[in-house]
Amino acid sequence: MAKYTSRADAMKVERDLHMSRGDGESSYATNSRLQEKSILKTRPVLHEAVAAAHASLSPAAAGTMVVADLGCSSGPNTLLVVSEVLGAIADQLQGGQRPPVHVQFFLNDLPGNDFNLVFQSLELFKKMAAKEKKGAALPPPYYVAGLPGNFYTRLFPDRCVHLFHSSYCLQWRSKVPEELSTGIALNEGNMYICEGTTQSVVKLYRKQFQDDFLMFLRLRHSELVSGGQMVLTFLGRKNKDVLRGGLSYMYGLLAQALQSLVEQGRVEKEKLDSFNLPVYAPSVDEVKEVIKKSDLFDINHIDLFESNWDPHDGLDGDLVLDSVQSGANVAKCIRAVHEPLIMHHFGEHILDDLFEIFSQNVAKHLQNVKTKYPVIVLSLKARRAPADDCCYSVFAHSQLM
Amino acid sequence: MAKYTSRADAMKVERDLHMSRGDGESSYATNSRLQEKSILKTRPVLHEAVAAAHASLSPAAAGTMVVADLGCSSGPNTLLVVSEVLGAIADQLQGGQRPPVHVQFFLNDLPGNDFNLVFQSLELFKKMAAKEKKGAALPPPYYVAGLPGNFYTRLFPDRCVHLFHSSYCLQWRSKVPEELSTGIALNEGNMYICEGTTQSVVKLYRKQFQDDFLMFLRLRHSELVSGGQMVLTFLGRKNKDVLRGGLSYMYGLLAQALQSLVEQGRVEKEKLDSFNLPVYAPSVDEVKEVIKKSDLFDINHIDLFESNWDPHDGLDGDLVLDSVQSGANVAKCIRAVHEPLIMHHFGEHILDDLFEIFSQNVAKHLQNVKTKYPVIVLSLKARRAPADDCCYSVFAHSQLM
Repeated sequence: MAKYTSRADAMKVERDLHMSRGDGESSYATNSRLQEKSILKTRPVLHEAVAAAHASLSPAAAGTMVVADLGCSSGPNTLLVVSEVLGAIADQLQGGQRPPVHVQFFLNDLPGNDFNLVFQSLELFKKMAAKEKKGAALPPPYYVAGLPGNFYTRLFPDRCVHLFHSSYCLQWRSKVPEELSTGIALNEGNMYICEGTTQSVVKLYRKQFQDDFLMFLRLRHSELVSGGQMVLTFLGRKNKDVLRGGLSYMYGLLAQALQSLVEQGRVEKEKLDSFNLPVYAPSVDEVKEVIKKSDLFDINHIDLFESNWDPHDGLDGDLVLDSVQSGANVAKCIRAVHEPLIMHHFGEHILDDLFEIFSQNVAKHLQNVKTKYPVIVLSLKARRAPADDCCYSVFAHSQLM
Repeated sequence: MAKYTSRADAMKVERDLHMSRGDGESSYATNSRLQEKSILKTRPVLHEAVAAAHASLSPAAAGTMVVADLGCSSGPNTLLVVSEVLGAIADQLQGGQRPPVHVQFFLNDLPGNDFNLVFQSLELFKKMAAKEKKGAALPPPYYVAGLPGNFYTRLFPDRCVHLFHSSYCLQWRSKVPEELSTGIALNEGNMYICEGTTQSVVKLYRKQFQDDFLMFLRLRHSELVSGGQMVLTFLGRKNKDVLRGGLSYMYGLLAQALQSLVEQGRVEKEKLDSFNLPVYAPSVDEVKEVIKKSDLFDINHIDLFESNWDPHDGLDGDLVLDSVQSGANVAKCIRAVHEPLIMHHFGEHILDDLFEIFSQNVAKHLQNVKTKYPVIVLSLKARRAPADDCCYSVFAHSQLM
């Protein structure tokens, strides 16, 4: 078994954070229904943002609307976003009052994402879209590029994007808070903020969120045209108490599964203690506070909805019909997203058993209470920047790349 | 063995034409020195085009220069082009007379290209470039996207690209001439124009080139800004006689290797007769004729240089020092480029033996005469289009997608 994580061996978000590749049974592509439901739920907000972005097109844009999806992953949802945006623009164009437009899409994710799969699906998507168009509003001409890169760095030149979209990504931090990854602070037996987490560790996580989100807003603002739009959906927290957020329960149950493996002598305790997820689920107030501090965006819309842990559970009530099946469904989704991170830290050999125990833990939990994921939906409009009056602006590139 | 190719089973350029994937011994990534040498040879032409493109930046471009490499493949040369362009811009900026610029690169190839490999190399490239920059002229901020798509269709919105580059791609046709792929015309025992090819088959190939190249020029002109630049390098023909072009010898030797397998009863004669490459190597005059017909571009520069078949042979003279080794080197390069096409038509089982025989054929040929590849280097400038005076222009999208 590998020894206690040295610093050189520590988690690298750019290398280790990607959804499970391919389209097999445990891949992200076949286990991303949760994300699909969220995209459909936020449809009205997205359509409004598309209309506003369309209205903001300047003559200099020469009839081209640039749309970027940040954290596109490589499943069916990747192209669902493309389809939604095209549909919204087609609706706009149908009245004939708006000038025609070409749409240039950028699908962004970390370089480890399976872009080959995305591009292969794109071929199918184009063929299907061409067949479907009979009767429906004609989609505008569109072009789709893949853009590898961390969205906590610059991804685009100045003022060239009209609409950013991001779904289920901004709960990810740019890194594990440094004091935790170097072992100066310890979140014993946990991998995220849970009931036992100390206030000093909570502060580290919250500070990482504030720094990351502020940086994200500044980066995107430089890249957006005046009046450019941003629709962001990410996991958040309904409870003011940070120790009792929706994600805390989820990761608490996963940490318990790892603790079982520690008890069986299959995972070293130190290995678990040194494992922390680069995640933070903020409250709506925490999000608003950073936006206000940035002084760069106006809020069009912000709210929070709750989504069942089990993506196959379409019931709104508090009843879980089959907790064992739901436990298995939840475990599959969580595995598809977290497998590469866990594998890098603990090794591949524990994966099957870990998620089997986790599945049982979730089933037990759901028998008692139907906990849900709180999801924040945020729509922002970029304020006009003073730099827009000048022809060229340059940012401090070396600090960001 | 598979039966004679039916129409449904015929070669699909979009599916079957891609370089050998990955970075193993027979991959394109490790067998693309020929292309590398060509990029270096055309450096002065590229640098002039970069300077002209930079000078053509309008205030509407907000300090962003858009550069696209068409047919980028997935080897070391993919990023060599990025590096060359960045170097040329850094030279431009060094004087301080030009305004600062951000560069947005699009690396285009067919969807079957290994973009994951490109994006992984890009990470390394960025790290190396950041280390190297001490002392040298600082490169401008740059962003690199992957753009899957056939360059015989639209790839970009109207008037948004400043510089197109394409190396070793435009000898590929959009398809095998239809009469050949449907079997109405027959190029018996050959896979390209060779000495035995009939005039009617030659006409089909030439017409396919003229149609494709004209379409290519029209498509790119719509996508280029006024004064936008295009540097194209591709295999051509020095000899006026189309039956005796440089590529005719090469593909003649490969067809002979297939004929050997027919004689051994390992390949059906019909299978060979129905195999035709979607390729045409034009003369400089043939290229000029299509450009003139298009009425869309001015020629900055056109010439033809000759490159040794063996990329490891750096000698300019007519002497081949080790024809056996050269035969093997040539076979590796040709295999890296053509393997997917040949495999789809004839099956994987013949590949090793085919290229072993081919390697011997090339060695024998090089003992008699050091034949070379003629390479055409073309630099074009987009003429101002009348549509530039209007804010929006729309092309007949349905015809091109």
